[in-house]
Amino acid sequence: MLTIIKGTIVSAPALGRLDATPNGYLVAENGVIQGVFPTLPERYAGAPVEDWGDDLVLQSFADLHLHGAQYPMLGTGMDLPLLDWLNAYAFPTEARFADPDYARAIYRRLARELIENGTTRVCMFSSLHTDATLILMEELEKAGVTGYVGKVNMDRNAAPGVLEETTEDSERATLRWLEASRDLRLVKPMLTPRFTPSCTDGLMAFLGRLAAERDLPVQSHLSENDREIEWVRQLHPDCSQYWETYAKFGLWNGRTVMAHCVWSDERERAAMKEAGVTAVHCPDSNVNVCSGTAPVRAMLDEGLKVALGSDIAGGDHLSMFDVTASAIRASKVRRMTDPARPAFLTVPEGWYLATSAGAAFFGEAPGFAAGNPLHAIVLSDDELPQPHPLTPQERLERAVYLRQKGAVRAVWSAGRKVFSAEG
Amino acid sequence: MLTIIKGTIVSAPALGRLDATPNGYLVAENGVIQGVFPTLPERYAGAPVEDWGDDLVLQSFADLHLHGAQYPMLGTGMDLPLLDWLNAYAFPTEARFADPDYARAIYRRLARELIENGTTRVCMFSSLHTDATLILMEELEKAGVTGYVGKVNMDRNAAPGVLEETTEDSERATLRWLEASRDLRLVKPMLTPRFTPSCTDGLMAFLGRLAAERDLPVQSHLSENDREIEWVRQLHPDCSQYWETYAKFGLWNGRTVMAHCVWSDERERAAMKEAGVTAVHCPDSNVNVCSGTAPVRAMLDEGLKVALGSDIAGGDHLSMFDVTASAIRASKVRRMTDPARPAFLTVPEGWYLATSAGAAFFGEAPGFAAGNPLHAIVLSDDELPQPHPLTPQERLERAVYLRQKGAVRAVWSAGRKVFSAEG
Repeated sequence: MLTIIKGTIVSAPALGRLDATPNGYLVAENGVIQGVFPTLPERYAGAPVEDWGDDLVLQSFADLHLHGAQYPMLGTGMDLPLLDWLNAYAFPTEARFADPDYARAIYRRLARELIENGTTRVCMFSSLHTDATLILMEELEKAGVTGYVGKVNMDRNAAPGVLEETTEDSERATLRWLEASRDLRLVKPMLTPRFTPSCTDGLMAFLGRLAAERDLPVQSHLSENDREIEWVRQLHPDCSQYWETYAKFGLWNGRTVMAHCVWSDERERAAMKEAGVTAVHCPDSNVNVCSGTAPVRAMLDEGLKVALGSDIAGGDHLSMFDVTASAIRASKVRRMTDPARPAFLTVPEGWYLATSAGAAFFGEAPGFAAGNPLHAIVLSDDELPQPHPLTPQERLERAVYLRQKGAVRAVWSAGRKVFSAEG
Repeated sequence: MLTIIKGTIVSAPALGRLDATPNGYLVAENGVIQGVFPTLPERYAGAPVEDWGDDLVLQSFADLHLHGAQYPMLGTGMDLPLLDWLNAYAFPTEARFADPDYARAIYRRLARELIENGTTRVCMFSSLHTDATLILMEELEKAGVTGYVGKVNMDRNAAPGVLEETTEDSERATLRWLEASRDLRLVKPMLTPRFTPSCTDGLMAFLGRLAAERDLPVQSHLSENDREIEWVRQLHPDCSQYWETYAKFGLWNGRTVMAHCVWSDERERAAMKEAGVTAVHCPDSNVNVCSGTAPVRAMLDEGLKVALGSDIAGGDHLSMFDVTASAIRASKVRRMTDPARPAFLTVPEGWYLATSAGAAFFGEAPGFAAGNPLHAIVLSDDELPQPHPLTPQERLERAVYLRQKGAVRAVWSAGRKVFSAEG
């Protein structure tokens, strides 16, 4: 099976670099990218070409941190800092997912919206509900979103009567969820201790063993907010830093994704680098709940793996175009407020973080590298003013800044075309 | 002539307060608001009612600082600090407006986009070109945008061969522009020295005299960026602060609008308060070109007049929904980085700044006060997920955060209906 997409092809093969091939051809065989070609190679002559004219053909996004069960509150409840925000808004919202019908309706819409916004890979938190988590995974798979989803584990400091589980419940539910999600092909389970304050030592140890035994990836939160960090310190006086509360239970390795890392200092960052942990920068949420701005430039300079997350609904933007712009803005705030005056993120850097860097967690090489599964979007900017000719790079910059509903015209995910604006 | 609009009416009658009247009636006679009523008063019985069901009926926006001539570069050129950005991007873009046909096409689109986004009052910079400025004013008036536009004066430190005028040219052009714009009804001229570094003392003195003789309002930039402030200090060693370079030429009074004021300290702010100058906070632009975050909370506490500006194209959002969210975000950054830990802006406060506070410059009382000209929009949020019932205030918060193309369904400006999504 051959897929040939023609258009202005732009990709991020390295941090800070954008390759552009106007009137180029992106070719995939059986869903696997063969390459980008300025002219169609002889061997494909006569094959059907999907011609998108001057539209941009881009890598699709990887959103490495978002809470599916907070989607219903998107764009509301922005007036509290993290811990109060959790109790006042996030927990009650997640509690609604005890109802499978509610979950089905909400998650179907979320899955569709992800695809329509060009996001085809995720690491996502569900809620603590096993059934709703399975429904989320089904709906994502059906829509064409690939990646990992986690049933949330939280057996302490939860919301009594609203959202809570015992250690035993949590363990049993986790095993049932792993069993029941076995047959899914594109969406796989990821162990998800909510964050250290939400999980007893017993539960953390259980999850660590499970991760090792079944070779499962792990996602959680790290060093987001000062009060949270202080709380972790009180809960684990034996650990000198937050990351150690994960590491000591075997939840800290190359398959671990840690959201935020706003306050991760040099030592914590070194621990991330050494273990191969991926830091997920969530710029919108970090500002909305007043956590801070993460030291992204330092992380990049030090060679850490860094990707981006929308972190809805602490974040208010599901579109990774917006999240990319927000990451650039956050880096400018960091530049203006950090005495070290770190360089801000350029658009090519932001774009790399939103696409290639996230895709790396799923084993892909950066850009439209041969051998990658085909993940791509077609982006039209016809409806924007066209006062003078722009380079492909300038068009990409504009697409990042100017959110355009409906501009994503087609989406391929894991080799398959999953969306086309024509229907 | 009677206008009766029915819907969920929300307005900002005071800083931090939102009044909501579900199933209410907003009534205007001959374009002048009579009031908001929970039930239709007897005297209007039988009059035709425009029924928008559950849609929100809101005040329209006032955008108190934007550059019409930078609209073509919206969303591009975000990689340089202010002064370099001016030379590399803004000046060459503005230079294109020497061509009246180009100006006509661009400004027509801009005017339409302002209305479609619910902005009905502006204080806007044009470029230095007289003809293009007149075209801009015509197109705004035709579309239904009201307010002030300024031909930009800039007789020094401009872009040689690209964008420059002599003092004499500038003065002559200004007089011609004032003469030619006489017959416009809704869009009036506003004197616009670009900023102190762009204007010789002679030109500033000329503009000050003109402002006094013809009772004209004035707009310019103030204390946006550290290098700019240092430059002003060198140019005017006699002035101890930036604002004095305007004040000494008679360009500093209750009809003056000053954009940015990022670095205005207590003394400069006191001078604004005393003179009744309006500070225009432009949060997007201040981050995009790395200027800083303005001390908005301090300004409000001190009783200054503060409104919001999109400042396109240093700002990347024309929609004031976005600008409101950006102002809230900027205030959270300020909270996180200012040792005084000022309170961030709430949504009701942000909404007030984007509507009532800006409208005050045009002589309106806050909210849908009786006696104000009718400026209003209808906002539909039907296309957003509706997982559980929201209060009118929560719906407004969500509208601020979740940009929704096409959600503005109808617009009234200066008493007249100027847009309806049905055509």
